[in-house]
Amino acid sequence: MSNLSSNLSSQERAGIGRRRRCVPVLRAALLVLALPLSAAAQNAASQNATSRNTDSLRPGPLIIDKQGSFFVGGRDIRSETLSSVPNHTATGTITVEQIYVRYQIPAGVTHASITFIHGCCLTGKTWETTPDGRMGWDEYFVRSGYPTYVIDQAGRGRAAADPSAIGSVRLGRAPADRLPVVFSAGHEIAWDIFRFGPQYGQAFPGLQFPLESQAEFWKQMVPDWSEALPSPNPTVSALSELAIRLGGTILVSHSQSGLYPFQTADLSTAGIAGIIAIEPGACPAATADMQPFTRMPILVLFGDNVETSRRWAPRLKACKAFVAAARQAGGTVELVQLPDIGITGNSHMLMQDKNSLSVADFLSGWIDTHIARPSQE
Amino acid sequence: MSNLSSNLSSQERAGIGRRRRCVPVLRAALLVLALPLSAAAQNAASQNATSRNTDSLRPGPLIIDKQGSFFVGGRDIRSETLSSVPNHTATGTITVEQIYVRYQIPAGVTHASITFIHGCCLTGKTWETTPDGRMGWDEYFVRSGYPTYVIDQAGRGRAAADPSAIGSVRLGRAPADRLPVVFSAGHEIAWDIFRFGPQYGQAFPGLQFPLESQAEFWKQMVPDWSEALPSPNPTVSALSELAIRLGGTILVSHSQSGLYPFQTADLSTAGIAGIIAIEPGACPAATADMQPFTRMPILVLFGDNVETSRRWAPRLKACKAFVAAARQAGGTVELVQLPDIGITGNSHMLMQDKNSLSVADFLSGWIDTHIARPSQE
Repeated sequence: MSNLSSNLSSQERAGIGRRRRCVPVLRAALLVLALPLSAAAQNAASQNATSRNTDSLRPGPLIIDKQGSFFVGGRDIRSETLSSVPNHTATGTITVEQIYVRYQIPAGVTHASITFIHGCCLTGKTWETTPDGRMGWDEYFVRSGYPTYVIDQAGRGRAAADPSAIGSVRLGRAPADRLPVVFSAGHEIAWDIFRFGPQYGQAFPGLQFPLESQAEFWKQMVPDWSEALPSPNPTVSALSELAIRLGGTILVSHSQSGLYPFQTADLSTAGIAGIIAIEPGACPAATADMQPFTRMPILVLFGDNVETSRRWAPRLKACKAFVAAARQAGGTVELVQLPDIGITGNSHMLMQDKNSLSVADFLSGWIDTHIARPSQE
Repeated sequence: MSNLSSNLSSQERAGIGRRRRCVPVLRAALLVLALPLSAAAQNAASQNATSRNTDSLRPGPLIIDKQGSFFVGGRDIRSETLSSVPNHTATGTITVEQIYVRYQIPAGVTHASITFIHGCCLTGKTWETTPDGRMGWDEYFVRSGYPTYVIDQAGRGRAAADPSAIGSVRLGRAPADRLPVVFSAGHEIAWDIFRFGPQYGQAFPGLQFPLESQAEFWKQMVPDWSEALPSPNPTVSALSELAIRLGGTILVSHSQSGLYPFQTADLSTAGIAGIIAIEPGACPAATADMQPFTRMPILVLFGDNVETSRRWAPRLKACKAFVAAARQAGGTVELVQLPDIGITGNSHMLMQDKNSLSVADFLSGWIDTHIARPSQE
């Protein structure tokens, strides 16, 4: 897709490097000049300076205007099998299918908000501190002036799953095939899914994923209840509600959640400022109605070693067909493979790779070019 | 236990109110004086000023020195039944029994860190934004100068459960009674557990819990896999590892996790600066070895309407017996019932009650009296 990646101007590609080089000077200036600035100006300058730090620099303080967490969506269900614990009643009402959202809004917002949607067998942790202890995208984008919203999908992490079927089968009230299909990815299969290397224990040459910290990464993985949920996944309608509430957010999906932003746009394009699909497990079919996808800029992003992957090559191909169809329909849609713009070695977990902040800077450049900034007060 | 609560000095009780009254003056001074302070002093003053805001005031910016998330503990297990999804292998290695930890360290640390440990059927969300949208203790204590660490217990929230038994039974390789005991608390039983009122749908007079936002609260509840985990819960050894790593943290438990800090101290008292057990589901037996509990200050805290609760009155009584035994052994251990110090109407979820920041201020006062501040640089 070099024809698509060539849509990126050389200025845009060079932008990251230029901003990076400004950092030491700006930091030094702040230290020397001490406090001739207003508090607001100082905060903004400080956030900006630290946002472009390389990993090896200790970032300055993070200045948060507001943070917190809440849920979106969800519905009440009655169950007779909430428990097989002897001392607790098994009958009652529980609330399920909501998504959990944690957010941080920086002092000095300069960009539209980003909503981060994790993939299979993972939670919102995906976007936080990397396995080797570097800053996650959740904070990096806040430091770059974006409010960030990190979700746990319905039925995952801090968003409740419905355990009724487990209770039903355990209590002998339902057959075993009524149990939910719950999927945990073992390290061995995950090695292939996340494209760490050609076979378990072996890394691709130049791999950017911090394999020396893989033990910490494996702890991020959780059982995936997606197959036990209605289709489309209730996360989709919750994302629509969230986007409308935020009044314009960039939906950033990953892997298994790849289709969700597109399904959300199918429900309603209201509140969706843009879509960034990072290595989507699926793109919309090329034969689908493309009208919703002409209403916001869309970027589909893939890392390295994709074409040679039995698992990922067909997905890349299908996404290319989708992108061609959406462009044909008049959409501002592009697909970028990182090696085509000189960023190599990225795994499927590119938000955790050692060059994760370079990838973030590329995304930030794409957003700057394609998505309007919020109007100043 | 008025004899125990009377250990709190009247100065200590009055302290919160005094600090609160300083806020408007200090805020105004900051606005007028603009920037005659060093950046560090200004940050500290700003954090301090905002930390004593009442709920109705818009707090100032939150200045974070460092934040992130990581896991502690965990072990690898082999499983043949990780999945019943046709396209995914069921054989592999997964990592389970770790705890998830999210932390924020404020600019200008003035106190020992706090580790917040949630209770039954809940996650670390317990300590975040309240159901009616007010600031959670996680942020309030950061604003008060405490590094805060919020965990998800092993097998809950972002800390993986082991689904192997579900797969085994679903695939016909194990009988139904091998299924994990997973417990979800329905709204109806939770109403009683959390002491919202004498019966479902009816509130205690003067109840502080924001029942008008109960729909948001129910979404916090998740299935509880504790019964399916080894005993003691693997969270305990992970807490010990965390405490040692932090080099001195106050373990704050709630409800089902009430025993965990005591079990942690039984393993090793290293790194435990203090224990605050909020409405513990259980205290150590009065006949237990009290030596570990003489090594750090301990506060057991209960809210309102406890003595009349069939569920909670026996727990209060047992905790009083423990406290008496620990004091007898020479420990600095006290039990406080909030009504005895003039704070009334609190439910079991007192960190979310409308007066949650008053309760936080009481705890902060207790900590100031009992736990040494970190030495200044």
